[in-house]
Amino acid sequence: MKTTISVLVENHPGVLFRIAGLFSRRGFNIDSLAVGTTENPDISRITIVVEGDEYIVEQVKKQLNKLVDVIKVSKIIPEDSVTRELVLIKVDAEPQVRSEIIHMAEIFRANIVDVSRKSMTIELTGDKNKISAFEELLKPFGIKELVRTGIIAVNRGANSIKIEEEN
Amino acid sequence: MKTTISVLVENHPGVLFRIAGLFSRRGFNIDSLAVGTTENPDISRITIVVEGDEYIVEQVKKQLNKLVDVIKVSKIIPEDSVTRELVLIKVDAEPQVRSEIIHMAEIFRANIVDVSRKSMTIELTGDKNKISAFEELLKPFGIKELVRTGIIAVNRGANSIKIEEEN
Repeated sequence: MKTTISVLVENHPGVLFRIAGLFSRRGFNIDSLAVGTTENPDISRITIVVEGDEYIVEQVKKQLNKLVDVIKVSKIIPEDSVTRELVLIKVDAEPQVRSEIIHMAEIFRANIVDVSRKSMTIELTGDKNKISAFEELLKPFGIKELVRTGIIAVNRGANSIKIEEEN
Repeated sequence: MKTTISVLVENHPGVLFRIAGLFSRRGFNIDSLAVGTTENPDISRITIVVEGDEYIVEQVKKQLNKLVDVIKVSKIIPEDSVTRELVLIKVDAEPQVRSEIIHMAEIFRANIVDVSRKSMTIELTGDKNKISAFEELLKPFGIKELVRTGIIAVNRGANSIKIEEEN
């Protein structure tokens, strides 16, 4: 089972190290992790997808809440949230297959961001399923390079992250 | 000065901890960090934006190359690469300002991904400048929540990451 956790932290050096250390020491498995500043440059938001059952997620939250620089820990409830990921995929594309790839990109509302004589690079955003489906579709052409950002999420509706706050 | 570094790593537990530890111990400042699996599920790609001059970036690369589980370290040359970031922004939006926000989103090719009675959530991809410009534009409405993925990058053209490889 995969659970997405959103962590607001003070933007201090070493905070990512302490969080990664917590996961490493306890053997919690990180599926993806994205860090960026928020609307307040002093505060960063780390979105972590962790592999594990409800007990493990509770442990992760408890331990995170004990760390210095951690302001707020929230579990993202899939049905109540928008989750998105960005991927850049470079695919083999000789001229004769280009139009087929462009057509696929249009269906997925993906953008072609670079073309060379032998390759195309495509940008796609979506949830995990959409991105996996697109990746499968491109595989037969030959994927040269694939980079994902990891998932980010916000709750639906007007409320900011708030769920099961423990601080 | 900000430099983007792409690190291919074996997808083993603890690898992020060791990398974050290296940055923390040496006082290298991480501006953003994104981790996701590649087309090969055993290999992850970590994109790190580091703050520092050329000397610091060289040190970072050298130290990363010494780490177990690190396969390849590449510096991303801005002129030769496509860099993208994804952001989700939840903004205060009473009915009377909605159409103005929708219009702005269209200009930036952003997508409205959620609407409630009092808010809208917008998804935007782009480079740092585009995202900052859009954020500035939305500020007067009141930003309730903002999450970034951190930057990811691929080289332009048919070559995969290759630059200044040291392994």
